[in-house]
Amino acid sequence: MINAYAALEAGAKLTPYQYDPGPIGDHEVEIEVRYCGICHSDISIIDNDWGMSSYPVVAGHEVVGIVSQLGAAVTNLSVGQTVGLGWYADYCETCEQCHNGDENICSDLTPTIVGHHGGFADKVRANANSVIRLPEGIDLKSVGPLLCGGLTVFNPLIQFETKPTDKVAVIGIGGLGHLALQFLQAWGCEVTAFTSSSKLQEALDMGAHYSVDSRDEAVMAELPRKFDMILSTVNVKLDWNLYLSKLKPRGRLHFVGATMEPLDIKVFNLTEAQRSISGSDTGSMQTCNKMLEFAQRHQVKPVIEMYPFEQINEAIEKLRNGDVRYRIVLER
Amino acid sequence: MINAYAALEAGAKLTPYQYDPGPIGDHEVEIEVRYCGICHSDISIIDNDWGMSSYPVVAGHEVVGIVSQLGAAVTNLSVGQTVGLGWYADYCETCEQCHNGDENICSDLTPTIVGHHGGFADKVRANANSVIRLPEGIDLKSVGPLLCGGLTVFNPLIQFETKPTDKVAVIGIGGLGHLALQFLQAWGCEVTAFTSSSKLQEALDMGAHYSVDSRDEAVMAELPRKFDMILSTVNVKLDWNLYLSKLKPRGRLHFVGATMEPLDIKVFNLTEAQRSISGSDTGSMQTCNKMLEFAQRHQVKPVIEMYPFEQINEAIEKLRNGDVRYRIVLER
Repeated sequence: MINAYAALEAGAKLTPYQYDPGPIGDHEVEIEVRYCGICHSDISIIDNDWGMSSYPVVAGHEVVGIVSQLGAAVTNLSVGQTVGLGWYADYCETCEQCHNGDENICSDLTPTIVGHHGGFADKVRANANSVIRLPEGIDLKSVGPLLCGGLTVFNPLIQFETKPTDKVAVIGIGGLGHLALQFLQAWGCEVTAFTSSSKLQEALDMGAHYSVDSRDEAVMAELPRKFDMILSTVNVKLDWNLYLSKLKPRGRLHFVGATMEPLDIKVFNLTEAQRSISGSDTGSMQTCNKMLEFAQRHQVKPVIEMYPFEQINEAIEKLRNGDVRYRIVLER
Repeated sequence: MINAYAALEAGAKLTPYQYDPGPIGDHEVEIEVRYCGICHSDISIIDNDWGMSSYPVVAGHEVVGIVSQLGAAVTNLSVGQTVGLGWYADYCETCEQCHNGDENICSDLTPTIVGHHGGFADKVRANANSVIRLPEGIDLKSVGPLLCGGLTVFNPLIQFETKPTDKVAVIGIGGLGHLALQFLQAWGCEVTAFTSSSKLQEALDMGAHYSVDSRDEAVMAELPRKFDMILSTVNVKLDWNLYLSKLKPRGRLHFVGATMEPLDIKVFNLTEAQRSISGSDTGSMQTCNKMLEFAQRHQVKPVIEMYPFEQINEAIEKLRNGDVRYRIVLER
C-alpha cells in the first residue's frame, strides 16, 4: 500500500489516503519519496483549474527519492539508487515527438499528477523512461524544484537557442522566475527582472543585472525595446502588447506561466518587427539532464523552505497566499 | 516634375497630382514606371487604416520600371536598366537589423508609400539600396506582385526554415495566398488551402494538395492536428484558437495579413505543445533576390488582371469589392 495525501475533490484540503498500486509493471519503477517540491501547478490540479483533474488527486511532481522496486524489464536503474521524477511519469515512445526526443510534448503523455498518483506520498510509481538519474553529489534537498520549475525555465534557452549575448527579461520573480534569473546569469545573458517593488533588490541579488518595477508606468514607458526574449512566469493577465513593444525585432515573448485569460495580441506588434509569441512546459529527458549538469556546474539552486510532509496543508496554504520565497520542499 | 495619382485625404478617390522631387540625391535612383501592382496595403494607406499615412498619399509599391536617372554615388545600377521597387525605398544601413541583413525590419525604414511617394506615377525615386535588380528574362508584367505580395509569403519559409517535408496551410486565397500556394508547392511541402467554398477548386489548381472550406464547421472539427505552419494572409478575425489546435507540437501560426482585431490566444494552446505565433511583413533584399530566382526556376507567377493607369480608380474599386482574381497590375 502507498500512503499518500490526496485531495478528494476540487479545492479540498489534503487528507491521508492509501492506495494499492498493484503488482509492479515490467517497465515500472517504485520510488521511496524523500523530498518533494510544491509547484503552483500542484494547486492548479488540486483545484481543477485546468479542467483535467481526476479525483482523488495525489499531487507532487518534484520528487527526489530512492528506488525501492524495479519492474522485470528495467535495466538502467538499480534498487537503492537516488533518482528524481518530474512532471511526467510516462510517454508513448512511439509518436513523432517521442522519436524526436521531445517526450514532454508526447501526444500520449502521462502527467505524474493527472490520472496518476504523484509524490505527496511515501512512494510513487513511474515508467523507467521518465525516472531521472541525478548527478553525483548534487544537493538532494534542493534538486526537486529543478525537476519541474527549473526545467520549465531552462527549456526555452535550449529550444530557442538563446545566446550568451542575448538580453533576456523574466516577468515574475517567484518559484520559476528566481530560477530563471540564475540560469540566465550563468548562461552569460544580460538579465532583467520585471517584478513588484518588494522584490527589486532580491532579484538583483539572484543574478539580474537590472530590476524593473513593472507596476511603475513611467519606468515601463521609458524602457527601450531591447530584449531578445521575455519569459513570462506569471499566471495573471498583463499588458502583453506593452511587453511586445519592448522586444527587439525578431524578439520572442515566451510563456511558461499558465495565464488563463486570453492574450489580446495586436498583430502589428508581431508583423512590424517579426516578433514571436510562444509557450512551453517542462522539457525533455535530455534537456533535463543538461539542465541538472548546468545547474550543478553553476551552483544554480532554488531558495527553499523545508516543511515536514505532515504539514503539507500549511505549506500549500502559504503558497496559495503568495508568501513563499521561493519554493517549498516537503521532507520525510 | 513627377505625374502621380494621389489620395488627398483618407479614403479619397485618386486624382492626378504633380510634384517636384527636387535634384536627385547622391544615393537616389529615379525609375520610370512601366508596371505597378496594387496591393491591399495600398488601400490601407490610402484610407489611413493603420494611422500612419501622410497626405497627399501616392501609393503603389510593386513597381517595375526603367532606371532613368542615377545619383552621383550610385555605382551598381545603370540608366536604362529594368528594375523593381517594393515596400521600402530606403533603410538606415547602420542599425542592428541592417547589419544583420534584415533591412525590412530596419528601425528607421522608409516605406515606399508612407511619408514618401510611390509608384502610382510616371516616375518614382528610391535609394539605390532598395532598388531590386530583376533576373534576366523574367516576365515583367507579372513580376510586380512578387516584389511585395510574393516576398511577404516567401519570407517566412526562409525565416523559419520550412522543410520540404513540412505540412503547411494557407488561410485566405487572394493576392498573397495564391502566391503562397505556388511557392509552397514548389518548395516540396504538403500544401493545404483554407478558403471559402467558391475557391476550393481554384486552390487545388494553383498547387494545393488539399482544399478546406474553412466555414464548414464539421470539416474543420475533423481536421487532424498536422500542420507545421499555418500562414494567415487574411485581415479579418478568425477562430485563431481553432487553427492553433490544428498545429502539430512545435507548430507555428504565422501572420502576414494585417488583422486589426486583437488575437485572443489561449496560452494553453501554446504551452501544451510548444507552439508559436508570429508575424512578418515583406523581406530583406537578399530574401527578395532568392525569391525572384526561385519564382523564375519554378514558374511561380501571380494571376493578374491588367489595367491602364488611367483606370486606377476602377481598379481600386474592384479590389475594395474583393472581386480581383488574384492581383491587379497597372500598366503605362
